[in-house]
Amino acid sequence: MTAHVIDGRKIAAALSEEVAAERDAAAARGERLGLATLSVGDDPAAAAYLRRIDRTAARLRVPHRSVTLAGSARIEEVLAAVHELNGDPSVSGILVLRPLPEHLDEAEVFAALDPVKDVEAVHPENAGLLALGTPRYVPSTAAAVYHLVDTWLAEIGEEPSAFYRRSRIVVVGRSNNVGKPAVSLAYAKQAAVTSVDEWASVGGRLGTHTRRGDVLIVAAGVPGLIRAEHVRAGAVVVDVGINVVDDGGGSRIVGDVAWDEVVGRARAITPVPGGVGPVTDVWLIRTTILAARHRTETT
Amino acid sequence: MTAHVIDGRKIAAALSEEVAAERDAAAARGERLGLATLSVGDDPAAAAYLRRIDRTAARLRVPHRSVTLAGSARIEEVLAAVHELNGDPSVSGILVLRPLPEHLDEAEVFAALDPVKDVEAVHPENAGLLALGTPRYVPSTAAAVYHLVDTWLAEIGEEPSAFYRRSRIVVVGRSNNVGKPAVSLAYAKQAAVTSVDEWASVGGRLGTHTRRGDVLIVAAGVPGLIRAEHVRAGAVVVDVGINVVDDGGGSRIVGDVAWDEVVGRARAITPVPGGVGPVTDVWLIRTTILAARHRTETT
Repeated sequence: MTAHVIDGRKIAAALSEEVAAERDAAAARGERLGLATLSVGDDPAAAAYLRRIDRTAARLRVPHRSVTLAGSARIEEVLAAVHELNGDPSVSGILVLRPLPEHLDEAEVFAALDPVKDVEAVHPENAGLLALGTPRYVPSTAAAVYHLVDTWLAEIGEEPSAFYRRSRIVVVGRSNNVGKPAVSLAYAKQAAVTSVDEWASVGGRLGTHTRRGDVLIVAAGVPGLIRAEHVRAGAVVVDVGINVVDDGGGSRIVGDVAWDEVVGRARAITPVPGGVGPVTDVWLIRTTILAARHRTETT
Repeated sequence: MTAHVIDGRKIAAALSEEVAAERDAAAARGERLGLATLSVGDDPAAAAYLRRIDRTAARLRVPHRSVTLAGSARIEEVLAAVHELNGDPSVSGILVLRPLPEHLDEAEVFAALDPVKDVEAVHPENAGLLALGTPRYVPSTAAAVYHLVDTWLAEIGEEPSAFYRRSRIVVVGRSNNVGKPAVSLAYAKQAAVTSVDEWASVGGRLGTHTRRGDVLIVAAGVPGLIRAEHVRAGAVVVDVGINVVDDGGGSRIVGDVAWDEVVGRARAITPVPGGVGPVTDVWLIRTTILAARHRTETT
């Protein structure tokens, strides 16, 4: 068996058309759309993500305002920048790029966001609404993961709710921005769901968990962590990893899944690059549009 | 093998001594302690829980103020009662008893609670802090579950962090007040954790999930759901169910676990009654004392 490759770029293009229609509808209602990003310092992964966001926002014609502070910025300066964006009427959604420099308390910055503008659901109130099963916003990456699987299910003619209810989803990695939201979304789909962290690898136990997954979502940040032996034959594998590895002369991007091995074992798989990433970018813009409606409703 | 019976009453008595010391320390710091409960209508399960709370608060000498509204109360009346308790300086913690009558939106009531007085962490902000791994308060039942297991581990000389890191916890049921918090607490313990809901039973698949659990936490509200065939030999079984069943002449309380079968298969098990319940009651008082400190710190 060779897995069906779930084409994130194609799915992102289709989603972009929907989002463009949502943008036009929002504009017709007189809602002000705008994404603001806040970066502190010059982390290369954050800078690369910022460039992707800028391109996607331009393509979807949603204004993007980028605020960059020096890596030495004090917490007071960062909070002041957040407050300024909270009050800016041209901004409907705010994304704080990670990682922040180590001297800054990420939680303090996230808690300062206006919850209605917090499109990545990092403010405790939004994380709570998601955990309680009534999300205001769904974090882009976790949303993209399920959008990819759902789109593939539609393509092969499987009814998503029946599929999920009989499936076990295994999530590798439990970060606040990907792994935990992916579990919360699995609750809503009424799937059985298993979450493992790095301790699953100790003593060689990772495979005993991951081989049980009908859907395997990998967000560990470890290049090539998931090999053929870790994957149930016929599983759907979603690779969230974006790792820059040295490739002799230059560098290239690889996922957390050993593609060459797993592509022969899975039923469907998302590539890196070209899988979760492009859909994530469009989802962020979609949520920014949704946030404009929420703001209109709450003011 | 006959399982060790984890004695919730004994563990609650030991915890009560700690909590009494915490109460005295809080009083010495001049903090005002008080629990308020809000009931709407006359649900028998809520009434039974209210009696337990009243007894436990009296025994631990923490004031308890019980507010009861008629089952026909409008949402405005319920919210007014919440606001009054939010503003009452004699109240450090508020518990809204479930279930609320169907015409009331539980989420709207919970969101009206002062988050600093929300000792069961049902306000979205507190649910979010728990989901993000930085809880302000831990819901009493989920806290009690792990307190029982941790106490048993200490008794048999197992180091809890090593135990959890090599274990898989399986949680049956995913309510907002028990199942989901039990998963979030498993994250913090770095255990592999699986959550299943009622769909796991369809097609006879429940056992394929539950038999993988080194720790099996059952909070389904289905009498006798878990039978010997569902339990890994040597597992630790924590029964959260409190079900009133007809017993010929009268009624009795049973858990979600078929005790007679499972006691011969598990390594340790909590009984019903006398397991999770008594520890839950004391934990609520403990959190009410903690809430008094938080209020002092935030005002």
